[in-house]
Amino acid sequence: MRDVAIIGSYTTKFGEMWERSFRDIVVEAGVGALEDAGVGGESIDSMFVGNMSGGQFVEQEHIGALIADYSGLAAGLHVPSTRVEAACASGGLAFRQGIQSVASGYNDIVVAAGVEKMTDVSSVGASSALAAAADREWEGMMGATFPGLYAMIARMHMQQYGTTSEQLAQVAVKNHKNGTNNPIAQYRNNITVDKVLNSIMVADPLHIFDCSPITDGAAALVLAPAEEAHKYTDTPIYVKGSGQASDTIALHDRRDITTLDASVYAAKRAYEMAGIGPDDIDVAEVHDCFTIAEICAIEDLGFVKKGQGGRFVEDGNTAIGGKIPVNTSGGLKACGHPVGATGIKQAAEIVNQLRGEAGKRQVEGAKIGLAHNVGGSGATALVHILGRER
Amino acid sequence: MRDVAIIGSYTTKFGEMWERSFRDIVVEAGVGALEDAGVGGESIDSMFVGNMSGGQFVEQEHIGALIADYSGLAAGLHVPSTRVEAACASGGLAFRQGIQSVASGYNDIVVAAGVEKMTDVSSVGASSALAAAADREWEGMMGATFPGLYAMIARMHMQQYGTTSEQLAQVAVKNHKNGTNNPIAQYRNNITVDKVLNSIMVADPLHIFDCSPITDGAAALVLAPAEEAHKYTDTPIYVKGSGQASDTIALHDRRDITTLDASVYAAKRAYEMAGIGPDDIDVAEVHDCFTIAEICAIEDLGFVKKGQGGRFVEDGNTAIGGKIPVNTSGGLKACGHPVGATGIKQAAEIVNQLRGEAGKRQVEGAKIGLAHNVGGSGATALVHILGRER
Repeated sequence: MRDVAIIGSYTTKFGEMWERSFRDIVVEAGVGALEDAGVGGESIDSMFVGNMSGGQFVEQEHIGALIADYSGLAAGLHVPSTRVEAACASGGLAFRQGIQSVASGYNDIVVAAGVEKMTDVSSVGASSALAAAADREWEGMMGATFPGLYAMIARMHMQQYGTTSEQLAQVAVKNHKNGTNNPIAQYRNNITVDKVLNSIMVADPLHIFDCSPITDGAAALVLAPAEEAHKYTDTPIYVKGSGQASDTIALHDRRDITTLDASVYAAKRAYEMAGIGPDDIDVAEVHDCFTIAEICAIEDLGFVKKGQGGRFVEDGNTAIGGKIPVNTSGGLKACGHPVGATGIKQAAEIVNQLRGEAGKRQVEGAKIGLAHNVGGSGATALVHILGRER
Repeated sequence: MRDVAIIGSYTTKFGEMWERSFRDIVVEAGVGALEDAGVGGESIDSMFVGNMSGGQFVEQEHIGALIADYSGLAAGLHVPSTRVEAACASGGLAFRQGIQSVASGYNDIVVAAGVEKMTDVSSVGASSALAAAADREWEGMMGATFPGLYAMIARMHMQQYGTTSEQLAQVAVKNHKNGTNNPIAQYRNNITVDKVLNSIMVADPLHIFDCSPITDGAAALVLAPAEEAHKYTDTPIYVKGSGQASDTIALHDRRDITTLDASVYAAKRAYEMAGIGPDDIDVAEVHDCFTIAEICAIEDLGFVKKGQGGRFVEDGNTAIGGKIPVNTSGGLKACGHPVGATGIKQAAEIVNQLRGEAGKRQVEGAKIGLAHNVGGSGATALVHILGRER
């Protein structure tokens, strides 16, 4: 099994891009990542693309071939291109498949990308399309949407551990603050706890500022065998660990709805592969589709004990300069959440941090970072650990 | 890179299963394959599932986790489960990802499955959902459906090479004949050339008996490192070659619409990896979504020179007992074509043949077989070469 490195990275602007198409944005990401790596299309052995629901959002499946075609890699080069899907964890999954494909020796240079165009949705609404990430027969058909499912998690966390609406709001406030310094973020404005608490209620206790938005965007990484990475870049970033885990698709079947066991197991597997623990992580991007999800994540990843996440955030431990800076990119809350792209964008932000290229949101001296991507209410989770040193 | 073997295989009955759900049929396939391999769920390191469009057909994405859950592999075991998609080549793609995952050393025992439930389609029609495998913006929105696209290929093949409607019909007649001996086939009745030619026209020159049907079904394989395969079975089947290639998503952008370059390149890569050529293949399952597709396939795979496929079929070379028996299972035409399952079912039929377990449709002494799976009108193709000996 070969070690793998990231040699190129690019994220498009995230936002509502009415003037651009699905294929436009993913090509921008792919070309951007290749330029960053300094490699041409003829060097690419394979592509992996994370996309949750081209079928529902833009009535287009067969996303892998489409993207190879529009990137100039199909006719002539006939580069294999594979779409993977695990709802909002589709990007993280594309990253993992790309890593395995290089590790296996099947491929050397691989593009791992993610894309979602959510604002063009036609025959179904975005909430209905997203509900396909939950259990359609036992949740969606009963009227459950994702804000409703995460609201139940939040309510239970409050009841069991005393977590407060103010603590949830602090997650959004921090992520918006980080987003002000991220040029690709959908929202670059500061907000206050009062603003969150006085915003409209979506699903009690989650206000609209507790929710990540509907977003268009794409991101791409270029991967290479670690032993060859220095041929392409002076700052390769190494994949130290990769973990994936599943859990029940329906929330009501879980052992404990405030713990995402898929996150716990994906993290355990990634930490074991990297030979490190949570205390060794300098910076993390976690899956804050709702504010409560970030609190669960920092607990499930081992940064803080179960139940103490709310207080941990309130005390500033997850801010830049704190004990473990979380979502320096602005997270899903401020960057936006184009579901298939998010997992790649998270890894790309860790690359920015480990390269020392994160500008005003740089975590000084960051050597090891973690990216955590969740599908649905936690039926899939991916954890990747990246390092500046091999 | 480790060699990989197939140690278990199972295909559900294919057909219109109004009384069964998406999750029912895929669980039957997974459990069946595990029983065939004699391994329990606790041995599974990872799952890969091919599915074209759960989102459009049953309003369900996040298929990997769903299947892990309903197979009893999510809660407790937390087995990673990944859905892959390349339209009608999704099954072949799941097989390839499974192979790479074992080859990489990330996993030892892996399930590669495929599933589609096409008869429950609600908000969109099946043809419209399937059209998402083509270029939605330049084909689907102009009214092109798959029968129309393949009719253009057929018309061009007739014009350039003199291929006849009778030769197309011979493909369907042969595949129905093979299907009569396959217990899982949707259609188990013999038909005649006259019956095909007098059946209703779908898209000139393709009659309804030139078209594969709408089908529900699932199939699964269990993979293991080749060096450990004999621990599980006396008849492991070895993966000798795996090739994947892309082409333009729209038919009108191709160099020559009668040649599927993706098939040509996928085959070239698989033959090179296996160190053999087309003459070494004893039995093949090819992607006959329409009769013309089988004629293009046997040409593109190198069994016969370009343009001579029609005559080659007419002369009986592709029948059981002929030079190169093609689609002994009955193919997509008689087995049916649950799009995400087809690629796995094809490999499962080659496993049947190489194990000598194909009953009345057995190709005597078959040692090396080939499975060929196409997405859309040829934007993705996968070719796998399997062998009885390592």
